[in-house]
Amino acid sequence: MYKLKCISCGKIYEPSPKIYVCPQCGSRLGTLEVIYDYEKINLKKSDFSPDGDISQFIKVLPINSYVTHLKVGGTPLYKFKNLLGIKEVQIKYDGTNPTASYKDRATAIALAKAYEYNYETIYCASTGNAASSLAGLAASTKLEAFIFVPASAPIAKIAQLYVYGAKVIQIDGTYDEAFDISMKIGEKLNWYSRNSAINPYLLEGKKTGALEVAVQTFYDPPDIVIVGVGDGTVISSLYKGFYDFYKLGLINKIPKIIGVQAENADAIVRTFEKGKPYKPIDIYAKTLADSISVGKPRDVIKACKYVEKSGGTFLRVSDEEIYSAILELAKNTGIFGEPAGAASYAGLKKAIKLGIVDKNEKACIFVTGNGLKDIKAVEKLIKPIKIEPKIEKVLEYINEVKS
Amino acid sequence: MYKLKCISCGKIYEPSPKIYVCPQCGSRLGTLEVIYDYEKINLKKSDFSPDGDISQFIKVLPINSYVTHLKVGGTPLYKFKNLLGIKEVQIKYDGTNPTASYKDRATAIALAKAYEYNYETIYCASTGNAASSLAGLAASTKLEAFIFVPASAPIAKIAQLYVYGAKVIQIDGTYDEAFDISMKIGEKLNWYSRNSAINPYLLEGKKTGALEVAVQTFYDPPDIVIVGVGDGTVISSLYKGFYDFYKLGLINKIPKIIGVQAENADAIVRTFEKGKPYKPIDIYAKTLADSISVGKPRDVIKACKYVEKSGGTFLRVSDEEIYSAILELAKNTGIFGEPAGAASYAGLKKAIKLGIVDKNEKACIFVTGNGLKDIKAVEKLIKPIKIEPKIEKVLEYINEVKS
Repeated sequence: MYKLKCISCGKIYEPSPKIYVCPQCGSRLGTLEVIYDYEKINLKKSDFSPDGDISQFIKVLPINSYVTHLKVGGTPLYKFKNLLGIKEVQIKYDGTNPTASYKDRATAIALAKAYEYNYETIYCASTGNAASSLAGLAASTKLEAFIFVPASAPIAKIAQLYVYGAKVIQIDGTYDEAFDISMKIGEKLNWYSRNSAINPYLLEGKKTGALEVAVQTFYDPPDIVIVGVGDGTVISSLYKGFYDFYKLGLINKIPKIIGVQAENADAIVRTFEKGKPYKPIDIYAKTLADSISVGKPRDVIKACKYVEKSGGTFLRVSDEEIYSAILELAKNTGIFGEPAGAASYAGLKKAIKLGIVDKNEKACIFVTGNGLKDIKAVEKLIKPIKIEPKIEKVLEYINEVKS
Repeated sequence: MYKLKCISCGKIYEPSPKIYVCPQCGSRLGTLEVIYDYEKINLKKSDFSPDGDISQFIKVLPINSYVTHLKVGGTPLYKFKNLLGIKEVQIKYDGTNPTASYKDRATAIALAKAYEYNYETIYCASTGNAASSLAGLAASTKLEAFIFVPASAPIAKIAQLYVYGAKVIQIDGTYDEAFDISMKIGEKLNWYSRNSAINPYLLEGKKTGALEVAVQTFYDPPDIVIVGVGDGTVISSLYKGFYDFYKLGLINKIPKIIGVQAENADAIVRTFEKGKPYKPIDIYAKTLADSISVGKPRDVIKACKYVEKSGGTFLRVSDEEIYSAILELAKNTGIFGEPAGAASYAGLKKAIKLGIVDKNEKACIFVTGNGLKDIKAVEKLIKPIKIEPKIEKVLEYINEVKS
């Protein structure tokens, strides 16, 4: 039904439980694409519903069966006619997934593969959304989840993993050390890997966000799609999703894909700007948007190639712009995104300013995580005010603040 | 289309912007029911979809039009065959609502009424889910939201309100003082009230949870419905929802409704146990489940009357039982509920133990809020462990913890 193809050398591999990346090009340059024989896949528009979960796309997913009972995907696509002065802003909001982030789409597919390959244990190294997603969705299956984190990770993030009953391995070292150890242990103990970008099927899960946008726009997709970028897998997946539906004749264009990185976590922007042949440029990343704070992105080659093919580009936004975007997005739409999720809104504003998005275009931004995931990020907003419990004092204050 | 009827004296009122409670019986005994002329409402099963938002129920709601673009309701109903030894456990999970709690159902209706009555400002006194729901959903409309909180409320809770652009009035006093001031200011400035139980339309919004369960069970509702109880409005709304659909001929039974309170916040259990005529018994409430930590419940009469009519009852669970329920629910199902949400699971376990639920019955529990709302409640789970970043040390640890 599908094969695996190296994004760098183009070599094709038969799928197997042991193949994660191209053995020749390695884990950095050799992430794999899942390629289908589109002529053998027969799908029509009426096969899909705007509210269905991602299992409705099983014929264009590399899985035989779907294993979680939790509703992954089928998240809302909100449409706004009078926002930021362009024809239409669409917001794909993934904060309603089971663990409140986009990562659940990838995890659902990883769990299905682990079942198919008869693994009993699945693992990842992460402190963020991938970790809570694996912990939460694994709890809905018979699989045991092990999660490697640096011991310094914030308590609130680790707490969720324990709640779901995942086994947490707190490594006294950096994130990179936790990642390296996880890979070695996974191989030694024959565990299935849900490490981002390494596992080629994660991207296939993530592409369902694009498939849903196609269905939810009645197969008339937006002109532009904008998303925050860390490792590069989500943005690659969006291109891939639209590409699949395009090849299947369900849509007749692929949107321009625009990636947004934080100024001080701009590894992929740098690689893209340097041009072809794309070469990873590693940096020390630092941004308040922790889900896209990646210095050593693993899907950088795929991200650059796909964005180029789409006719899109990459942009930088400052942490201040991300911060303002969280508030502006929430006030204007009622959607509270985590910082990395609101980065797409900041990116849209910048793209309009730079003339990359025209006022006659429809743009879709992906808000990939719920703001409740990172309340700490907005706590500095609080102005501690104490008003005496007297009517006249309260009326005075209301007069001051009323808009 | 509908009238308002006092839950205590039975007097019937024509709806008007100025009527919140029965003027004769007052705000405590005189909360109002919305009553319909069922013969004039024509609905069939095929009018509803399992994934639709609550606007699909507009013909049995006291509103002319629906005003938020956010997707409220249409939340998942998960069904488990092998949980806790009974025929079927259904879990209605409202953590996927726009602000991640059941309260969004009520707020959506309050906003619609405020529009209908041409108000420009809407307010409530709350530190919890009602507050964030009003802030979030009001941001999706033209209404301005004012929220009265005690200045001592936790920063994380107040932060969300600011994010959505609500005006927050931090009263230097208790919650009761903030509530009283809010009522006086609301009246003086002609603002619309979204104060729980006071506004009769909130319950009508909340009943949509029951309507959805009816639709999602293909009009064969569960035998038992279990929910955590604070003010008494949610539990009353569940009876009312099933009652409406029963009167409309869409279902042929009303489930037994079981209310669950924390041992040290059991005001309604006490009133129910004392028997008729029901009289509010106020207490000093203290439980970790802050969404049901209510000492002076406002919908106590309605809750007792409706639960009695359904053939159900009220139960107490300890904070330890609620705490264990959060974990057991998350580990067994992948659903992470806030403490008040997991109280229903603790209640189901107790009801089975007490023989109130039989093993041949289907029970539906309502998990009314997302666990991410109250991460603090689970942080004490963390065992700070530091493992050296060495393979053999990690393998040792894995041997210890592997199940």
